[in-house]
Amino acid sequence: MAKAYFKHSADAPPPLRCCVERVVRFEEVDALGIVWHGRYPSYFEDGRVLLGENHGIGYMDFYARGIAAPIKQMHADYKLPLRFGDRFTIEAVLHWSDAMRLNHEFILRNAEGLITTTGYSVQLLLDSENQVLMLPPPFYADFRERWRAGEFLGDRCTE
Amino acid sequence: MAKAYFKHSADAPPPLRCCVERVVRFEEVDALGIVWHGRYPSYFEDGRVLLGENHGIGYMDFYARGIAAPIKQMHADYKLPLRFGDRFTIEAVLHWSDAMRLNHEFILRNAEGLITTTGYSVQLLLDSENQVLMLPPPFYADFRERWRAGEFLGDRCTE
Amino acid sequence: MAKAYFKHSADAPPPLRCCVERVVRFEEVDALGIVWHGRYPSYFEDGRVLLGENHGIGYMDFYARGIAAPIKQMHADYKLPLRFGDRFTIEAVLHWSDAMRLNHEFILRNAEGLITTTGYSVQLLLDSENQVLMLPPPFYADFRERWRAGEFLGDRCTE
Amino acid sequence: MAKAYFKHSADAPPPLRCCVERVVRFEEVDALGIVWHGRYPSYFEDGRVLLGENHGIGYMDFYARGIAAPIKQMHADYKLPLRFGDRFTIEAVLHWSDAMRLNHEFILRNAEGLITTTGYSVQLLLDSENQVLMLPPPFYADFRERWRAGEFLGDRCTE
Repeated sequence: MAKAYFKHSADAPPPLRCCVERVVRFEEVDALGIVWHGRYPSYFEDGRVLLGENHGIGYMDFYARGIAAPIKQMHADYKLPLRFGDRFTIEAVLHWSDAMRLNHEFILRNAEGLITTTGYSVQLLLDSENQVLMLPPPFYADFRERWRAGEFLGDRCTE
Repeated sequence: MAKAYFKHSADAPPPLRCCVERVVRFEEVDALGIVWHGRYPSYFEDGRVLLGENHGIGYMDFYARGIAAPIKQMHADYKLPLRFGDRFTIEAVLHWSDAMRLNHEFILRNAEGLITTTGYSVQLLLDSENQVLMLPPPFYADFRERWRAGEFLGDRCTE
Repeated sequence: MAKAYFKHSADAPPPLRCCVERVVRFEEVDALGIVWHGRYPSYFEDGRVLLGENHGIGYMDFYARGIAAPIKQMHADYKLPLRFGDRFTIEAVLHWSDAMRLNHEFILRNAEGLITTTGYSVQLLLDSENQVLMLPPPFYADFRERWRAGEFLGDRCTE
Repeated sequence: MAKAYFKHSADAPPPLRCCVERVVRFEEVDALGIVWHGRYPSYFEDGRVLLGENHGIGYMDFYARGIAAPIKQMHADYKLPLRFGDRFTIEAVLHWSDAMRLNHEFILRNAEGLITTTGYSVQLLLDSENQVLMLPPPFYADFRERWRAGEFLGDRCTE
């Protein structure tokens, strides 16, 4: 990808990654025989959910601590269509941010390995009174420390 | 309709009715160019929601009293297809039941007035501890009394 | 299940079966924290699609021969809720019919093996002029012969 | 809005506008009680579809001429949540482009008139052989001429 969705500070640790495989459902395809563009937030979320669970910062990890992580921004670039029955992979990439934001990038590839779609989402963290968190809660500070320390370096995009 | 989805006791008051108009969205149509069969629960719900709101027994009326009304049964009979841009009406019919159940019937008609789809749903009422309600809570008893008293007789299926 | 959705003639071969595993997505859960009742047609379809593909009568097998297999009837009985992240299995069962119909039954089970939902769907076969097929096309006659001959007896509900 | 999604050449005619009203459905709301972020492409599309129909460049107008107008880019900025039953308006804005692109902006407002969500989509035009159109087909050239001539100046965002 020529254009980077997110900029990194020079000392940012490398991004975290995971991959999910999925097959296009009949209901996801439109009258033109291709996946309707509005289904991709679901595809992106599959990657985001798994990456979170893999690193102890899943939806339920936040929820259990009274923290919400609403989506503030979503973006998709459609390059190639997907069709009913197509097998594809969703690569989710979590980029380091010094701010209290979750910056995810998504890369979808078809069975030939071609990139069909890319995109990103940005999340803020809210406390139980809907105030934006400016400082990381302990479990999240811990996660960031382990990330910085290289604990997730083995992360690979393999099923 | 030849077959009745629900049986009435002899002294049951006439059913309540309302109609909603809707237009088929692009995203609701499948690769064959017709509305995917799994979108119809959404169409049914449009009718059910409006009928409830019209009579003080809407989703939020139950919710405000700590009562849930989960769907226990849903059924659809597909007779004619609907296509992108088709304008159609959803008639929701609430049948009287001596038991603590909400028995809704649904009749969809296309712009020519032909029946395209029929169906029904059955709901039970649960209290805040997820126990099935056997007796009507006051607001619901009140609604039933007004129904019996003929207060809703003016109900007509007009937009 | 006490009540059978479909009746069999005495000499009908045993039904065909397959199972799909799925995990509840965040988007599938409603404001009450349980899967919205209208998502289950998607769950049922996952089972129906795989069972068809496994036996050479998948959506694309029909499509390639100019045959459509629209859903004429769908039914769901909701017994237990499913929640975000729940892992569950969808068992699809194809019952023999002497008529040109596809009669599928669906049984969903949660991670404890408890039945959460059952249902069924009925499909007719239409030729390229939208006429109901009364006689099986060759590939489908062949499938039925192999079924009668016991070729699929090994079918088991295992992932 | 401080940031403009699209830049205009100095002599571009003013953008076209239309508004659609919609009410949040129960199924659109997530476990946190707010509209799931992935439903907004549907909201955007309601506006895009109506604006196209109003000006003779609807989905079916393209389709009838063998032209597809796939979404190449979609973006959403979430500012305030929407909840079950909320009434809101979707303003769709078509910005002039010298290139063969459809550049739509979307502005959602709640019942108090506050902006809840903004976004945009970019579409290319493809001929029947999936080649990108570099020159406008006649009906589209005609539409652009009428736009330039100020024929749509009366366009107002009123229901």
